[in-house]
Amino acid sequence: MDRNAPKTYQLSAATAVDVADILRLIRALAEYEKLSDQVVATEAALQEALFGATPRVEALVARSASRVVGFALYFQNYSTFRARSGVYLEDLFVEPEYRGSGIGQALLRKLAGIAVARGCERFEWAVLDWNVPAIEFYQSLGARPLDDWTVYRLGGDALQALAAQA
Amino acid sequence: MDRNAPKTYQLSAATAVDVADILRLIRALAEYEKLSDQVVATEAALQEALFGATPRVEALVARSASRVVGFALYFQNYSTFRARSGVYLEDLFVEPEYRGSGIGQALLRKLAGIAVARGCERFEWAVLDWNVPAIEFYQSLGARPLDDWTVYRLGGDALQALAAQA
Repeated sequence: MDRNAPKTYQLSAATAVDVADILRLIRALAEYEKLSDQVVATEAALQEALFGATPRVEALVARSASRVVGFALYFQNYSTFRARSGVYLEDLFVEPEYRGSGIGQALLRKLAGIAVARGCERFEWAVLDWNVPAIEFYQSLGARPLDDWTVYRLGGDALQALAAQA
Repeated sequence: MDRNAPKTYQLSAATAVDVADILRLIRALAEYEKLSDQVVATEAALQEALFGATPRVEALVARSASRVVGFALYFQNYSTFRARSGVYLEDLFVEPEYRGSGIGQALLRKLAGIAVARGCERFEWAVLDWNVPAIEFYQSLGARPLDDWTVYRLGGDALQALAAQA
């Protein structure tokens, strides 16, 4: 591939035929984030979450020359203070050779449009602190870090132990 | 009230009659977090989110002597890496005079039990970095900070501007 060739792309809401590609890109994202050891997702589980009887998440895909080269997966969160849902972006990924062609920004623009159309005031996502290129990109779009908040997680044995006391 | 008297309490899933009390406690939490200027929640909006046609959140309430003195409000988030839902605790609050009587821990225990019963591996929430008593309490239960992640938010004019380009 000529890396300097203009790369055209199309965005669309994901459908069931995209699940295998989304899983492929989730694995590529985990590799980039040095978190591959955490990935246990299967196509069946992802299919259920996206298109099962009670969908839990939604996704957009970006295609170039009919191939899925990027995706965004999101769900709605909720602010009690605003008494309003927000859009929470769980994953955003564009294949390395397609970066710089505007696909990432187009996915974020589309999600911002979805957020506003749904009456949401907030569009949020988490970023690894060492991922400076991503942070600069997000800041350039007007996103701001919630610097005074830290997410705490109870998982594994600690979660089981607390649950056992319930 | 005798602050040293043992305080008995009962936990239950919130119902529609609890909405006014939950809103009162949301406002008290915002005041504690020095974020009262952000609160625009109304009883109608909260009623819709909890008990409308498409509920977006769930809540537990703690009663003492028939009065609601604490609550936890939560929703399900999602991990693509685990291909699994998790429990996300948006708000936890116990009235100051009822702290130290185990209500906060009982609410967290019950939520941990709900998470495990639903097959979730993760129970998460965000804490203000200056809230040291809360952080020590959460750590004592085995919760760990996701120190290398920062949440970014696109809101207000920046969200509208990006959406307008979609």
